[in-house]
Amino acid sequence: MRNFKVTLAYDGSGYHGWQRQSNALAVQEVVENAIFKLTGEKVVVQGCSRTDAGVHARMYVLSMELESTITPRGIQLGLNSWLPDDISVIGCEECEAGFHARYHCKGKEYEYIVHNSRIKDPFLKNTAFRNTYPIDEVLLDKAAKDYVGEHDFKAFCSTACDKEITVRTIYRFDVRREGELVIFTVAGNGFLYNMVRIMVGTLLFINEGKIAADAIPRIIESKDRTKAGKTVPPQGLYLNKVYYDKEPED
Amino acid sequence: MRNFKVTLAYDGSGYHGWQRQSNALAVQEVVENAIFKLTGEKVVVQGCSRTDAGVHARMYVLSMELESTITPRGIQLGLNSWLPDDISVIGCEECEAGFHARYHCKGKEYEYIVHNSRIKDPFLKNTAFRNTYPIDEVLLDKAAKDYVGEHDFKAFCSTACDKEITVRTIYRFDVRREGELVIFTVAGNGFLYNMVRIMVGTLLFINEGKIAADAIPRIIESKDRTKAGKTVPPQGLYLNKVYYDKEPED
Repeated sequence: MRNFKVTLAYDGSGYHGWQRQSNALAVQEVVENAIFKLTGEKVVVQGCSRTDAGVHARMYVLSMELESTITPRGIQLGLNSWLPDDISVIGCEECEAGFHARYHCKGKEYEYIVHNSRIKDPFLKNTAFRNTYPIDEVLLDKAAKDYVGEHDFKAFCSTACDKEITVRTIYRFDVRREGELVIFTVAGNGFLYNMVRIMVGTLLFINEGKIAADAIPRIIESKDRTKAGKTVPPQGLYLNKVYYDKEPED
Repeated sequence: MRNFKVTLAYDGSGYHGWQRQSNALAVQEVVENAIFKLTGEKVVVQGCSRTDAGVHARMYVLSMELESTITPRGIQLGLNSWLPDDISVIGCEECEAGFHARYHCKGKEYEYIVHNSRIKDPFLKNTAFRNTYPIDEVLLDKAAKDYVGEHDFKAFCSTACDKEITVRTIYRFDVRREGELVIFTVAGNGFLYNMVRIMVGTLLFINEGKIAADAIPRIIESKDRTKAGKTVPPQGLYLNKVYYDKEPED
């Protein structure tokens, strides 16, 4: 068997997240079907992460084993011809036998895009979350630094989270503005269920004065989900980068 | 009755164009339904242009008469709360009684976006046309200048076109590159059915060597649709600006 590392990008608007499920269409199922059409092989691919319904990926890595003698370039172009236009194979390489997209992942970077405007932009319908309250991105960039470091992020985890260990390391968390867009970028060694969306929601509560600007350390300390802000909706969230070699502490 | 000039932006992906029709959902119908929900008035709005299924608008002007005493700002915010996220009212003003969005339109600017890449970008699925052949935007910008001026554009009109007079004036036609995107911008006093999409398709044929770089004047002369290039698909096309005051000869 040959082992491959495949990199995707997808617009998650039309999918119920990454993971294959019985009652709704997921990206994994569409990708596995395309692999079957291309190679005739029924494989179960290993994704680097579950993404939720409506969440996007600019870089998503999966690993898979194939019998086929097809070249990596042939896999990329072949899968792209079978995949719908909202899923794209942006890279493919053959890799060592043991490589596993999830187990060997060293870290990830997410981006969350807020459209900060009273007036809707029809072209951002599925690709940003609109928040009408004027955002002070300098204030939020400062507050976001309190997330950085190794902490128990239990307060920033959906109550549906099934992880026993909720300690994660955040390498950086930056907030910047590009016109009407406010962009939250966070990198860490791992993320709990809904963690990025709750971290961003907490910053938006700080912006609106519903949570104090210096409260993040106390919320972390509390380990209490109800102290943090609302979970912001999925359409603003992008899995941006996945790291395998070294920790992305740039 | 009060007369209003309303400016919209919309992502046309989910609609069968602007004009209300019996068997498919059009932007006009959705807008008129929102007006009814807001004001209780059944109005027929006058749009500046028909746009085809899948075509977008960054600026689309309609005029309408209302009995209501609502303010222009109230119309904008009220309609936006009733409209789906892919249609936005970006401006509204009360105007003189006789103003008509189509009859008084002095000119329009369209943009056509080509994603020039072998690899799909999932986020451009509905908002650009992917063309894999490497585009020489300098060559095409030069060739596009042959469209400028007053000409009979019968050769650049769908054979389904019902206009008797096919003379139009093109003010400018520019082609530029922004990374993987090649952007065609054309302004004129009016456009025939599918005219922009055939003009762009002809330039893409010039790029691919299927039509000579200096052939546009001869194609115009021929008045023969079969001499021009293919009609490119709708998802790359944007109605960009609509002019009422003076000709946009900037």
